[in-house]
Amino acid sequence: MKNYSLSFKKDELIILDQTKLPLKVEYLKIISLEQAFKAIKNLKVRGAPLIGVFAGYSLYLSLKNRSFKSKREFFKRLNKNIFYLKTSRPTAVNLSWALDRIKRKAEDNSGKDITGIKEIIKKEAKAIHREDILLCRKIAESGIKLINSRDRILTHCNTGFLATSGEGTALSIIYEAQRKYGNIKVYADETRPLFQGARLTAWELLSKKVDVTLICDNMPAYLMKMGKIDKIIVGADRIASNGDTANKIGTYSLAVLAKHHKIPFYVAAPSSSFDLSLDKGEDIPIELRGEREIKFIQKKQITPSKTPVWNPAFDLTPAGLITCLITEKGIISHPLKANIAHLT
Amino acid sequence: MKNYSLSFKKDELIILDQTKLPLKVEYLKIISLEQAFKAIKNLKVRGAPLIGVFAGYSLYLSLKNRSFKSKREFFKRLNKNIFYLKTSRPTAVNLSWALDRIKRKAEDNSGKDITGIKEIIKKEAKAIHREDILLCRKIAESGIKLINSRDRILTHCNTGFLATSGEGTALSIIYEAQRKYGNIKVYADETRPLFQGARLTAWELLSKKVDVTLICDNMPAYLMKMGKIDKIIVGADRIASNGDTANKIGTYSLAVLAKHHKIPFYVAAPSSSFDLSLDKGEDIPIELRGEREIKFIQKKQITPSKTPVWNPAFDLTPAGLITCLITEKGIISHPLKANIAHLT
Repeated sequence: MKNYSLSFKKDELIILDQTKLPLKVEYLKIISLEQAFKAIKNLKVRGAPLIGVFAGYSLYLSLKNRSFKSKREFFKRLNKNIFYLKTSRPTAVNLSWALDRIKRKAEDNSGKDITGIKEIIKKEAKAIHREDILLCRKIAESGIKLINSRDRILTHCNTGFLATSGEGTALSIIYEAQRKYGNIKVYADETRPLFQGARLTAWELLSKKVDVTLICDNMPAYLMKMGKIDKIIVGADRIASNGDTANKIGTYSLAVLAKHHKIPFYVAAPSSSFDLSLDKGEDIPIELRGEREIKFIQKKQITPSKTPVWNPAFDLTPAGLITCLITEKGIISHPLKANIAHLT
Repeated sequence: MKNYSLSFKKDELIILDQTKLPLKVEYLKIISLEQAFKAIKNLKVRGAPLIGVFAGYSLYLSLKNRSFKSKREFFKRLNKNIFYLKTSRPTAVNLSWALDRIKRKAEDNSGKDITGIKEIIKKEAKAIHREDILLCRKIAESGIKLINSRDRILTHCNTGFLATSGEGTALSIIYEAQRKYGNIKVYADETRPLFQGARLTAWELLSKKVDVTLICDNMPAYLMKMGKIDKIIVGADRIASNGDTANKIGTYSLAVLAKHHKIPFYVAAPSSSFDLSLDKGEDIPIELRGEREIKFIQKKQITPSKTPVWNPAFDLTPAGLITCLITEKGIISHPLKANIAHLT
């Protein structure tokens, strides 16, 4: 069977446990809300779009077999579960976006009986899933226009079929380019502290027979100086209405380096990653994660126990450093703020 | 007993095995040339200045107990051993510098008998050792002029008492500033692939009670953007006559980021790190190291076995990105080329 990141069939939600990759391909059946929360929190399931899809199904399953005395009680539980799931990771907006979308749909159908509303929720979760697959396709179709034969592309973190339910955001463009030209070269940085590049992107690209070379996070600048990077494509966890982008820590660094070396810097994301309620990047909450992620690697300690560490999961890239945004609705060029407003 | 990186007493050469830090403090007695070669190659002993000191003693020990039929045979072996040791690591110039200095001294004293020349070699190795300790002091005295109370300083790799026989190059300045002001804040990046920042610098600074926070290599840019870095100080493995500097991979990245954020970027190194035979950085050989360093961490595999990797141990920072050079002879400002020529 082909590897997949998430499957929902006959009310069974199964995910690939991404913390086990690349050495083990293990699938995990999600049966409780607490388990779903932990799967997101501990990055067993990850990637902004995929988290959105996963949260929708998890919400449905958390309500499905429960009986309620009243619709009031049902909606109270719905809101409670949504609130709980949202706290699993604060930065990626797709999580909130998917849950709020389902909530609205449920409220719009509050005339139905509880069983009917549960079905509506399931249908909406499936719609989000289907759309996500389609979004990846359309992002690829938008982005392919920017890629040339023999391009050498640097990417960061993991934005492929492990991060979405389709072929990915940034990586979907690379897959499309590889199909079109057959000669795309990818550099993946390892993406400390959790090695999404080394563990996931390298694994994905190798499985799709894309020419990939793994480098450490302090090496891209030197590669750029040597003239070996033509383009940089990254994903996004949340984009403010002015185009400022929150994405995996290290993204901002690459954007500054790209500017210095006059290399195009592209952000690929579905429109569900845009948060138009926020004026600018500084309004996006940045998740700080535990020190163990830096101090230990696969349970092996690499620094003295008492070393203080700082571990932001994301950083902010100002719109000014982004060449353009690639979405399922097309390419958004500068001025980003005005063009984002047009888009939506 | 106080921790030390290298000791030479009664013809016994002992080093701290830096590959075991920070979890184990293990000392290693060096008894053969092959063992010395491997200790350098495998980074049991490291840091450009310390490698120079170590090579001097290793050369002496490799000749000491050997008997020679003629002075011709002696010098042949001397040259052979020097050539062999030099190939252990190509980038740091201090290794060649120390060995060539000893060779010259031996040749200048070729009128003496073999026992006498061996003594001369030992004396010169000791002189290099003594001078290295003094150089660290003087670099600190030069650099302290650039540091203010409450400065928050980012450093890279390890340039302290583990990299030299004294208090270090870049770190000697930090130690001096800490003694003077008592409120210096240091950010150490972990320095992949070999984690010299996480393993060595964090350990050193904690042992000296300096306020240090460890970050990953993709985090400095974001810290700079947040206005939390006042200065960057790094060491050097080799400096060309125009000021271009080869140093641990990631140095160039920090220099570009420093420029973007208008943060002073200092390189601290003894004059033995200058290679005036080279016009520019591109002439410095850059050591490419094995893929295992990236693919495995403490024997644990983090990427698929067949992932191709690129692993340069060093990069080149052009003189234009360096605010000034800090040496034992004082601060070298721009124009670096002219002022380096004056220095020597």
